[in-house]
Amino acid sequence: MVIIMHPEATQQNIDEVVSVIRSRGLEAKIMIGEQQKIIGVIGDKTKFASVPVDAMPGVDHSVEISKSYKLASREFHPESSVIDVDGVAIGGAEPVIMAGPCAVESREQLLESAEIIKAGGAQFLRGGAYKPRTSPYSFQGLEVEGLKYLAEARERTGLKIVTEVTTVEAIEHVAQYADMLQIGARNMQNFGLLKEVGRCGKPVLLKRGLAATLDEWLNAAEYIMNEGNPNVVFCERGIRTYETYTRNTLDLSAVAAIKHLSHLPIIVDPSHGTGKWRMVKPMALAAIASGADGLMMEVHPNPAKALSDGNQSLTPEHYREAMAAVKKLAAFMRTL
Amino acid sequence: MVIIMHPEATQQNIDEVVSVIRSRGLEAKIMIGEQQKIIGVIGDKTKFASVPVDAMPGVDHSVEISKSYKLASREFHPESSVIDVDGVAIGGAEPVIMAGPCAVESREQLLESAEIIKAGGAQFLRGGAYKPRTSPYSFQGLEVEGLKYLAEARERTGLKIVTEVTTVEAIEHVAQYADMLQIGARNMQNFGLLKEVGRCGKPVLLKRGLAATLDEWLNAAEYIMNEGNPNVVFCERGIRTYETYTRNTLDLSAVAAIKHLSHLPIIVDPSHGTGKWRMVKPMALAAIASGADGLMMEVHPNPAKALSDGNQSLTPEHYREAMAAVKKLAAFMRTL
Amino acid sequence: MVIIMHPEATQQNIDEVVSVIRSRGLEAKIMIGEQQKIIGVIGDKTKFASVPVDAMPGVDHSVEISKSYKLASREFHPESSVIDVDGVAIGGAEPVIMAGPCAVESREQLLESAEIIKAGGAQFLRGGAYKPRTSPYSFQGLEVEGLKYLAEARERTGLKIVTEVTTVEAIEHVAQYADMLQIGARNMQNFGLLKEVGRCGKPVLLKRGLAATLDEWLNAAEYIMNEGNPNVVFCERGIRTYETYTRNTLDLSAVAAIKHLSHLPIIVDPSHGTGKWRMVKPMALAAIASGADGLMMEVHPNPAKALSDGNQSLTPEHYREAMAAVKKLAAFMRTL
Amino acid sequence: MVIIMHPEATQQNIDEVVSVIRSRGLEAKIMIGEQQKIIGVIGDKTKFASVPVDAMPGVDHSVEISKSYKLASREFHPESSVIDVDGVAIGGAEPVIMAGPCAVESREQLLESAEIIKAGGAQFLRGGAYKPRTSPYSFQGLEVEGLKYLAEARERTGLKIVTEVTTVEAIEHVAQYADMLQIGARNMQNFGLLKEVGRCGKPVLLKRGLAATLDEWLNAAEYIMNEGNPNVVFCERGIRTYETYTRNTLDLSAVAAIKHLSHLPIIVDPSHGTGKWRMVKPMALAAIASGADGLMMEVHPNPAKALSDGNQSLTPEHYREAMAAVKKLAAFMRTL
Repeated sequence: MVIIMHPEATQQNIDEVVSVIRSRGLEAKIMIGEQQKIIGVIGDKTKFASVPVDAMPGVDHSVEISKSYKLASREFHPESSVIDVDGVAIGGAEPVIMAGPCAVESREQLLESAEIIKAGGAQFLRGGAYKPRTSPYSFQGLEVEGLKYLAEARERTGLKIVTEVTTVEAIEHVAQYADMLQIGARNMQNFGLLKEVGRCGKPVLLKRGLAATLDEWLNAAEYIMNEGNPNVVFCERGIRTYETYTRNTLDLSAVAAIKHLSHLPIIVDPSHGTGKWRMVKPMALAAIASGADGLMMEVHPNPAKALSDGNQSLTPEHYREAMAAVKKLAAFMRTL
Repeated sequence: MVIIMHPEATQQNIDEVVSVIRSRGLEAKIMIGEQQKIIGVIGDKTKFASVPVDAMPGVDHSVEISKSYKLASREFHPESSVIDVDGVAIGGAEPVIMAGPCAVESREQLLESAEIIKAGGAQFLRGGAYKPRTSPYSFQGLEVEGLKYLAEARERTGLKIVTEVTTVEAIEHVAQYADMLQIGARNMQNFGLLKEVGRCGKPVLLKRGLAATLDEWLNAAEYIMNEGNPNVVFCERGIRTYETYTRNTLDLSAVAAIKHLSHLPIIVDPSHGTGKWRMVKPMALAAIASGADGLMMEVHPNPAKALSDGNQSLTPEHYREAMAAVKKLAAFMRTL
Repeated sequence: MVIIMHPEATQQNIDEVVSVIRSRGLEAKIMIGEQQKIIGVIGDKTKFASVPVDAMPGVDHSVEISKSYKLASREFHPESSVIDVDGVAIGGAEPVIMAGPCAVESREQLLESAEIIKAGGAQFLRGGAYKPRTSPYSFQGLEVEGLKYLAEARERTGLKIVTEVTTVEAIEHVAQYADMLQIGARNMQNFGLLKEVGRCGKPVLLKRGLAATLDEWLNAAEYIMNEGNPNVVFCERGIRTYETYTRNTLDLSAVAAIKHLSHLPIIVDPSHGTGKWRMVKPMALAAIASGADGLMMEVHPNPAKALSDGNQSLTPEHYREAMAAVKKLAAFMRTL
Repeated sequence: MVIIMHPEATQQNIDEVVSVIRSRGLEAKIMIGEQQKIIGVIGDKTKFASVPVDAMPGVDHSVEISKSYKLASREFHPESSVIDVDGVAIGGAEPVIMAGPCAVESREQLLESAEIIKAGGAQFLRGGAYKPRTSPYSFQGLEVEGLKYLAEARERTGLKIVTEVTTVEAIEHVAQYADMLQIGARNMQNFGLLKEVGRCGKPVLLKRGLAATLDEWLNAAEYIMNEGNPNVVFCERGIRTYETYTRNTLDLSAVAAIKHLSHLPIIVDPSHGTGKWRMVKPMALAAIASGADGLMMEVHPNPAKALSDGNQSLTPEHYREAMAAVKKLAAFMRTL
């Protein structure tokens, strides 16, 4: 942390700030120039969050320069992590594809989807059994029944299952049927839920919050890892901006940023990222070219009849086309 | 909903869209001009959410024109609601002030704060026992111990207690000690939590999400009300924008907007809204002038030693000054 | 500026950074802790902009902590400035009201508007003769003809004239007829235009850019002042955010922020800030309560027939009501 | 446009709205359901901008559903346009690369840059002679002298020249020396400048505004085309969001969106889009994979000594690496 004092701050003001810093076991370094009086704070960065210096006399403002996460940081873990999900490696040479309908709507719809997904070459089947919906009148998911269909689909196809968990109470059920737990965008800072999935043994797919900074996202991973679960995979799914043409603004630069800041893998969800099925394929290819470790895509046997997110779901045919291109591109990228 | 067809959409495309709309029990009206082909969808708006027409052939895009909430809407409840919290009316002639420290840090700190808050004239004591913090290494709250101090402060001062609940499991505890449950910004779309506080008998203070639209906020209230709890009060606390000088951008226009769209009361939190104690008083006055039903302000006996949010907390002296001005302004506004 | 080095930066990396800093006539202070290596840069802040240290080996990132503007800064000019516009003081005890139609549409419309504005008690008549419109097919303004009507309205009513100038070529014309030149939001970083109005003798009303930070806005004022024109008044008119209910998000905290950072006056435009006439009065009152030095409001003799911005224009009756309330509130605020 | 009436709007309200619509030569279609009363407006979309229905009695709000641009729209020009810049085709099979320093700093720096750019395989040399800078104390460009160096570099290397024009007065000079005129982000809605480059014969590179919607961007192109210049190329360069890790948020989904909405080519600038040289190569590859028609990249012989944007400029070595990868990827993409 760097503290910028008022131009007219007194020596006593400076002394008091330094004294508070030292009382927290941190070191203070003073820099005084003609126009600036600055105090640098040095030491264990996890102690910084609780130094409320801006409230002290003579302080103009302060600037945070350290990261508050450690376990998720590449600084202390320079090698990239590969997360194993029951035999499928995320973060390795080959991109991992997760595909399936937004929601599990019925046994038939899910099993049909699973066959399509398997045939197209993805390794994971996605599908929500618990659906966080903006309106209480929208379809809320089949819950445990949906989980059972997912498990049945796994038995038939061998696909791994990734599905969202929205409450602490549901973790036990979801963990029983799924191979990987998804934390959705709206729950990225549901800290009680993060801690609990941190205590559960399953790998976690952590979607970026609707308006989460990279720093907040990395700290959300830190919550999970701090409870003993190192198997976290990030999923960029678009952020909220002023642009309304797309449902969200897919921030592909997050891929390179996360790879620089963290050792954990990151995949990209162009379906939620754009909200338009027409844009899924070009953005899937862009994600792979940017270095993403995989993709999550919404596919529905009949998008026009989907109970949610039909507008952004690929038809089986478009899914096959997209997968063919993604695989070729991924193979090409390994030669670059 | 209004569906805008491609200029080259065929009559068959139009027929199919109309057929899907009618299959959901909705009515379709077709408007064809030289340059536009538009289909209007008329009917019960809660059925709209699940019509994925954008995925159908010939459709260019669709525009939602109806609100998906009902119970929170002024349309079906033209008179303003007054929420009673154990004898204190929110939404009545007089603004309600909630004040206190960000976090309950100790018995002494809280009881001292309560005396200050009471003396300044607020009706509610705030203070977090469960703290949602970005970093897992920041102070996380005293939990049940903190709740007990809050209850003790109420006994001593007669102040009502409002405090945040962050998990379903904690609702029972919080409801036992508090008069009003707060849903924090990060949990505004934690739908499991919303439903559960909807089933609990206590009034709810619903903070606006970090990047929530008014429509999402109203729908979050709808989740609570739909479970049988009509006692919801909105709290505008700033939204996330590109501006970094303030912690958030306090959206005071939300006061007039919510009053137009909903019958529920709305208060304003200028402490989180700005993140700077210097700006709390001017924005508190602005909130009252804009028509807000009350304020929530952070006050700490010694902000420079606060364990969280010290930078935005008022000192006891600044709190008294702000309260004096707020009360005079509120009395003046009643004469306008 | 503070430079944060990589944890594994070498002493040679640090030496090279220090050497670049010193070569620009700035001072470098090194702080080395267990986890951080930081270099503080001290000296004349106007030299900082051109130090591209992030490109140097061993540098992780850098953080700007100094302001790049001087003339607009309160640091070097602690007393608030009062700007005189031909006898009307902006920034004094009484708020200044600028009102009128979005665009000058005809002689009749403007003269009628001027009578209404005058009767309501505003000091300035606004009205665009040169209109920056998103679409080239929207009404673009009457140009010099419109300026002449504005001047005629001044002769008849004694109101001062403020009107927008959108091109360097038009400055001469506008300055001939107007008392104050307005720089619109879309031109806030049209630096050629800023410099030229800086060379012209007239006071300038500088609207905030659609997505301008406070720092960029203050620097835009610096461009004008740096050419010799100290008479700049800020106008907050809403910023672009993800919220779509309002046309923009009126950032009233900018009033307190600008008053802290600068000695120049600031007024507020609730018409563009909200885009809805129903919200103009509450936000006008909020602006006055927040400490604004005045208001700009759109008023039209018949908004439903306006050629632009009819949706956000007050009718004559609503204008009179708003003015009556604003005046009473302003008088009350002086007693606080 | 679709007009949503209040639930309690009267038949007279509806009749008046319909009458205003018809008075503008547009057609009105009324849809009345149990909960909704909607009026659809049909007709020539360029007449819509000036219908201020929201100000009329009984109107709740209105929603724009039509595009206000025509010449830039794919609707009326289904085939993709290829823009010829003195023999180089933009929008054809091969991506076009524009590279060079942010600013022309000296004859030596520019000629050295040009040799590097040429050797790496780009077709265009970029470099600013007129620099729009946030602070008036930052380097403002060499102006005409800089243009002459650019022309000299063209003679030596055969590279085409693209450079920014920031004022109407400078167009003549820039057009004399450059092959393509660049409109920078800050001037995207400087309508006077847009009209004037529309009258000039040279092709135009139109950067997206800092916070411009796709619709505003397309309308900016419409301003240029409406003056008779059809040779417009879009350049996505990142938009302003709440995320501060990157300088801007590069919106690659704009590539697919613009290709759907318009027949004009679009290139991508990952240097401004990210603000970090480390992220330029991955985002350049992502842009090509997303379907962009080319790239603009900042390259400097010695970024650590650059007078502006050094942090985001590639070194000669990184440029060569990036170009090699981009070319291979572009060739691969043609086989997909």
